[in-house]
Amino acid sequence: MINRLSFTFEDEKTQKKAFKAIEKEQQSIGYYALPDQDITPLLKYCDSISDTIDTIAVIGIGGSSLGAKAVYEFLKPLNGLTRKLYFFESTDPINITNLLSHIEFSKTHFLVISKSGTTVETFSIYKYIYSLQSDPTAYTFITDPDSPLETYAKEINSTVLHLPHNVGGRFSVLSTVGLVPLALCGIEIQALLNGAKEVKESFFYDGYLKDTLLKKATFYAKNHTQYNINCIFAYSETLKYFCEWYVQLWGESLGKHQRHSAFHVGLTPIGLIGPEDQHSFLQLIMEGTRDKSVTFIKIEDFHDNITIPDITLPHLEGLDTLNNLPFSKLINMQCDSVLESLEAQDDIPIDTIILPSVDENTIGSLLYYYELLTSLVGELIDVNTYNQPGVEAGKIILKKKLNQKER
Amino acid sequence: MINRLSFTFEDEKTQKKAFKAIEKEQQSIGYYALPDQDITPLLKYCDSISDTIDTIAVIGIGGSSLGAKAVYEFLKPLNGLTRKLYFFESTDPINITNLLSHIEFSKTHFLVISKSGTTVETFSIYKYIYSLQSDPTAYTFITDPDSPLETYAKEINSTVLHLPHNVGGRFSVLSTVGLVPLALCGIEIQALLNGAKEVKESFFYDGYLKDTLLKKATFYAKNHTQYNINCIFAYSETLKYFCEWYVQLWGESLGKHQRHSAFHVGLTPIGLIGPEDQHSFLQLIMEGTRDKSVTFIKIEDFHDNITIPDITLPHLEGLDTLNNLPFSKLINMQCDSVLESLEAQDDIPIDTIILPSVDENTIGSLLYYYELLTSLVGELIDVNTYNQPGVEAGKIILKKKLNQKER
Repeated sequence: MINRLSFTFEDEKTQKKAFKAIEKEQQSIGYYALPDQDITPLLKYCDSISDTIDTIAVIGIGGSSLGAKAVYEFLKPLNGLTRKLYFFESTDPINITNLLSHIEFSKTHFLVISKSGTTVETFSIYKYIYSLQSDPTAYTFITDPDSPLETYAKEINSTVLHLPHNVGGRFSVLSTVGLVPLALCGIEIQALLNGAKEVKESFFYDGYLKDTLLKKATFYAKNHTQYNINCIFAYSETLKYFCEWYVQLWGESLGKHQRHSAFHVGLTPIGLIGPEDQHSFLQLIMEGTRDKSVTFIKIEDFHDNITIPDITLPHLEGLDTLNNLPFSKLINMQCDSVLESLEAQDDIPIDTIILPSVDENTIGSLLYYYELLTSLVGELIDVNTYNQPGVEAGKIILKKKLNQKER
Repeated sequence: MINRLSFTFEDEKTQKKAFKAIEKEQQSIGYYALPDQDITPLLKYCDSISDTIDTIAVIGIGGSSLGAKAVYEFLKPLNGLTRKLYFFESTDPINITNLLSHIEFSKTHFLVISKSGTTVETFSIYKYIYSLQSDPTAYTFITDPDSPLETYAKEINSTVLHLPHNVGGRFSVLSTVGLVPLALCGIEIQALLNGAKEVKESFFYDGYLKDTLLKKATFYAKNHTQYNINCIFAYSETLKYFCEWYVQLWGESLGKHQRHSAFHVGLTPIGLIGPEDQHSFLQLIMEGTRDKSVTFIKIEDFHDNITIPDITLPHLEGLDTLNNLPFSKLINMQCDSVLESLEAQDDIPIDTIILPSVDENTIGSLLYYYELLTSLVGELIDVNTYNQPGVEAGKIILKKKLNQKER
């Protein structure tokens, strides 16, 4: 992947300090090491799942589903996948009923993913599905070692896999949480990790991404009160769920009380898809308040060569300039045109990420790039990037409501 | 629908002035009158489409697709729909190929929707599909009267329907643009309009929504520099595309140069879905910068009574409080819990919209409510709510690129 910044930010001292902090963080934060893991045990587990299984269903929410979904939806159109993948995330009864209508129990393996083993959404859904499919071999549980969920799973004779140490949900896509469902669908998880590893090495060992990531992170951090909204404008439908993953990663990591001040800070993530959102959100970027940065993401090679045919429509001859143009070329021209129109504004920070193609290596790089960027910005704006204390209050209120006799 | 505000804002003079301006706008802005239209001609047109057609495909982007998509996706789980509806919006070749794989040409009718008849996305896709299906009776064109597209369509003997006068794309869901695809799928469009009409009358004739809408709009406008991000937190998967429609409506209408100042202004829309986004964006709302308002939307009756079964999981007995709870009740308890946790913060403006059920009337009300709110806020922050000059620059650059020999 290539990343070009149209802004610059030189502050060597701050950048050096941030880099050192991230280097040190590798000792305590688990996600940094994930690209280097040995996947042999995971692949062995995957081999144990029968070929008669044609559907994998993840029961999990947030960090337990968004990463695998991002990768799966990016690669799905390639048609090389061996199994279908569904995600039970919502307690919306309409959604549960609808998803179940797509599933044949005899051909489905369920992955129940919960760190703590107490996630309300996951276990409401699990209980419901368990009442319809009570065969314990239809389930694999992914949880923390020695959690009550592990004890339960062992007692009913289901398989248990462990979450790695010190990897939070939103940084867990390259761990068991993301790799297992993806590998079960025929995705080359080693290539995914290799892509991540390239970015990791480029950053930590003075590659081209070190300078870029440090510049971008210090710019975002320095200007976090002015440019407090960070848009991704991705020119491919296949990146829609990558954007949802980004929204969780960025929002939940960077929306915090500062560690050493009394202030609430936060950078707001927005995921946009081109060209559709040219007809939606673009006006706001172009003429609205100058509070947004924009990162364009484009794909160089779509592996698809459909072309606009050489047809003249009478009275609409103006459209002939489109003739004989491959759609992949058109969509990238649309991206460039919008990018140039925003760059001409001079007060909107823009950068571009160019992905070489639609494959495992590429999406692995992109995920790891955003994880590193998030860690850097979190360090620079003085927050704890890895916790989420703000979601507890709602959980406590829900627990009280559930305990009340009168529901 | 019910709308409860947890904030208040009394400024009778400003509210009166805004109301008068909106009352007057009815003379020049077409969408206000849409709930009162006679749909007989539209229904007659729909009857002319053969029963052998089981799929409707809209070729259109932005305002030509988002409204129908919002309504269709809201009502789809009800299972009463008579035809499938697809949307060709993107120039992404992977997306086009994928959508076409779901379509059988002999059973599909295409609706080509373009006001001007020059939309690049729409006509690239149309040309491509036309090269595969050249039967003119497979297409209906929806465009402005006397546009070059109308001339073209008549020349090839396709049906033409007109867009109403003075209705912009993002306000067009209750016009031909939205009503035709929806009616063709068996959706009761009169009930949709009736829902809108209830909101319209409540607002213009001193009903309960007049006071609420004016309070909310003046609060948003007055505080638009502090609370410049307006989140919808909708507790149902079925409202996901309503959120996308809202993002276009709000962002493209309210992100502008002010009419009587030198300033860029803008309110940034965010669409969230609960409970999933409790595990994503909630942390940022709860502990991040105080720049966000939140509107919770919940559905009282999901027409679905699946219930969490009375199962105790050994070692996970703490989850027994979930037993025997209908999912519809759980999801609303989750909504109330998050709402209460945010209200306790005191500096986050919150309101709640309660929708009685999943039906045409309900979604019609909700759409019109948001159109009125947008018009009011636009008037109050001194922008032209109905244009989108900021998207032109990119179009001009693209045109230049397309005209260059070397592409």
